[in-house]
Amino acid sequence: MAELKIELITIGDEILLGHTLDTNAHWIASRLTENGHRLRWISVVGDNASDLRHQLRRAWNRADIVLLTGGLGPTHDDITRPIIADFFDDNLIPNPELAERIRSRFVGRGLKPPPGCHLLAEFPSRATPMPNEHGSAPGIHYSLDDHELFAMPGVPVEMKGMLSDYVLPHLATIRSGVFGYRILRTAGIGETRLAELIGDRERLSPATLAYLPSVDHGVTLRISCTGADTGEIDQALQKAEDYIRSRVDSHIYAAGDEPFEKAILDMLEERNMKLALAESCTGGMIASRIVSVPGSSNSFERGFVTYSNRAKTELLGVDENLLQKHGAVSAEVAAAMAEGARLKAGVDIAVSVTGIAGPTGGTTEKPVGLVFTGVSDGDGCEVQRYHFIGDRDANRRRSAQAALVMLWRRLKDVLPQTGVKV
Amino acid sequence: MAELKIELITIGDEILLGHTLDTNAHWIASRLTENGHRLRWISVVGDNASDLRHQLRRAWNRADIVLLTGGLGPTHDDITRPIIADFFDDNLIPNPELAERIRSRFVGRGLKPPPGCHLLAEFPSRATPMPNEHGSAPGIHYSLDDHELFAMPGVPVEMKGMLSDYVLPHLATIRSGVFGYRILRTAGIGETRLAELIGDRERLSPATLAYLPSVDHGVTLRISCTGADTGEIDQALQKAEDYIRSRVDSHIYAAGDEPFEKAILDMLEERNMKLALAESCTGGMIASRIVSVPGSSNSFERGFVTYSNRAKTELLGVDENLLQKHGAVSAEVAAAMAEGARLKAGVDIAVSVTGIAGPTGGTTEKPVGLVFTGVSDGDGCEVQRYHFIGDRDANRRRSAQAALVMLWRRLKDVLPQTGVKV
Repeated sequence: MAELKIELITIGDEILLGHTLDTNAHWIASRLTENGHRLRWISVVGDNASDLRHQLRRAWNRADIVLLTGGLGPTHDDITRPIIADFFDDNLIPNPELAERIRSRFVGRGLKPPPGCHLLAEFPSRATPMPNEHGSAPGIHYSLDDHELFAMPGVPVEMKGMLSDYVLPHLATIRSGVFGYRILRTAGIGETRLAELIGDRERLSPATLAYLPSVDHGVTLRISCTGADTGEIDQALQKAEDYIRSRVDSHIYAAGDEPFEKAILDMLEERNMKLALAESCTGGMIASRIVSVPGSSNSFERGFVTYSNRAKTELLGVDENLLQKHGAVSAEVAAAMAEGARLKAGVDIAVSVTGIAGPTGGTTEKPVGLVFTGVSDGDGCEVQRYHFIGDRDANRRRSAQAALVMLWRRLKDVLPQTGVKV
Repeated sequence: MAELKIELITIGDEILLGHTLDTNAHWIASRLTENGHRLRWISVVGDNASDLRHQLRRAWNRADIVLLTGGLGPTHDDITRPIIADFFDDNLIPNPELAERIRSRFVGRGLKPPPGCHLLAEFPSRATPMPNEHGSAPGIHYSLDDHELFAMPGVPVEMKGMLSDYVLPHLATIRSGVFGYRILRTAGIGETRLAELIGDRERLSPATLAYLPSVDHGVTLRISCTGADTGEIDQALQKAEDYIRSRVDSHIYAAGDEPFEKAILDMLEERNMKLALAESCTGGMIASRIVSVPGSSNSFERGFVTYSNRAKTELLGVDENLLQKHGAVSAEVAAAMAEGARLKAGVDIAVSVTGIAGPTGGTTEKPVGLVFTGVSDGDGCEVQRYHFIGDRDANRRRSAQAALVMLWRRLKDVLPQTGVKV
């Protein structure tokens, strides 16, 4: 029942030079944790054959599972494939099936396969290719002596697809001991306050609880447990989930992997309501989050990115006098934007945001980070005021989340679904 | 004149669990690079004595300079100080001067020194304390056998102060060799095609070139070089940059850290042009990228997220017959959206996107990933067709980038700035 020892090797000068923040490592660590694994080491080496070779040897010796990202592409600084093959005393041989897959990716889009792309089909003879849904370079999987190595591309979308579709399912099959977890997703409440409300962790035993906060998508709760069989684990997890729900159920929007936007769109669909958005400082970020959900067109009608005052007046009918009197960043304008968006779009509910994202544009009275969100529906209009303390990006992300939380609460508490129970 | 070999050890479970993005490592790497050093290894270990001991031994063996962050505080999981002392066969002894410094920090702010804070003044007998301007825990500096170890707190503000005020000045006195780099940013061209155009890498010698691709922000080129002095390096970097520019200059939008959106906004401002956006499948993503730049309000007037056909007709004046005849995802509708956005917003230039992001909604004739982008200005209207192969998120990101590339090219090639040379 020993835990798998997992090491991640990230390859890339760009990280060591400080050009790129290693978000891949962070994403991989999060996904492993969510799936009940624990990353034990992260090692970053440059595009340097000798350093990679040394790290590979060390990782293979100390870890059960070695994950690599980076250096799998077709250019000269992509050294991972030959070095891995060499490390396992293996050869790169042309793989016709891979060559055809790579060629057809280009041809299928009416493109000529670029020179050098045939190199990608030279594959270690004893490894298994991991399919790459989002790019040309296949991943490399070696399974030897109860050890596993998974080499993935460094391009985030390619790495993410491969980890989700291949590596995590594979790890689930070789896990030692029975392990289970459940995910509960919360919105609109911080980690500290959640911990206060949940209180005594002993009540959850034998399950344990982890808080996974994020700057702009709420706090995720992970309940996990190890045991003799799945029945025993399910029982322990259910007991812990029941207890947690008895304390903080009103803050939980979903169980499992469902994103917040999806939960909101489902609620809109259940209520047969259409949504419009009016965004100023978030500048399309809320719309983009909503549209990230497949099928969002069922409930999302349109968005207004009214960045200028003229746009607020022309598109949303916000009174110029209101803008003059209270300023664009005010409760009054947030309300007028939400109402205007709802009426102009001819929809059932609309959400607005106006704020000062920074770094400039703040005053003593209206500092950077001051944000108003509004929601308007047939029953009325609500406005909330926030003061975020972060950089432009963080303030915009938090504003978008705050607006979505407001919409969610309005749907949940004020506009309960009629007919069917939610 | 060998380059100093520098290793950074980051200590903290929160990074391995994916709760915290390791921004300390990124900041340290950037500052080292700016100061002509190069970080060779980053190793992340948990709050685990055995793993830290092993990593310390390895780092001390392979690196000239070992930097550590984390675990210097007064709580039970702050294990760094005793482990370092033990590693150097040293003892922790009470240091009255440090004790007084720590005590007076609290007393000076009218606070009672917390219990446990006296532990911070138990310091390795052969190390030098590094002053902490922003917190209680002093840093630890060992200098032994031409090797240096600098242990800093994990709290970003404390670490940053110590690195800037103590570590970097110290490294400057023991530097051997100089390192320099330049960054060129490209858009609208892939890594493979760039490599083909640039051709023979020998022409860049003694500088070297790295390609840093990203799915949705273009390929970054990094030219780097090591040499005897900064003059020599500048010359080599300039030679390499000149050569690269002679091959691919038209694909380079900026040198240095400038984001693509910023380059586009600057071009709009130079031309005194106002921008509007009409987005369907990207759903506000382009607007959000534009608004991420401080001061974007100077040139960005508004955005339309016309997700429904009704919104396309009502807000942009797209002819219903056109939508019926060609479908919403068509060159004709992309053109009508761009023209409509420009005219309705009363601006100089507008960009449109319409496409099928997937995973559903595709047909044989119009498959998932089919995207049209349009740009309209006083001189006319252009449309381009793309077929992306990715998931919903990747297709949307690539669509947003394609639209921005089209706008950038239009500004650069068709609407050159009048008066001042671009």
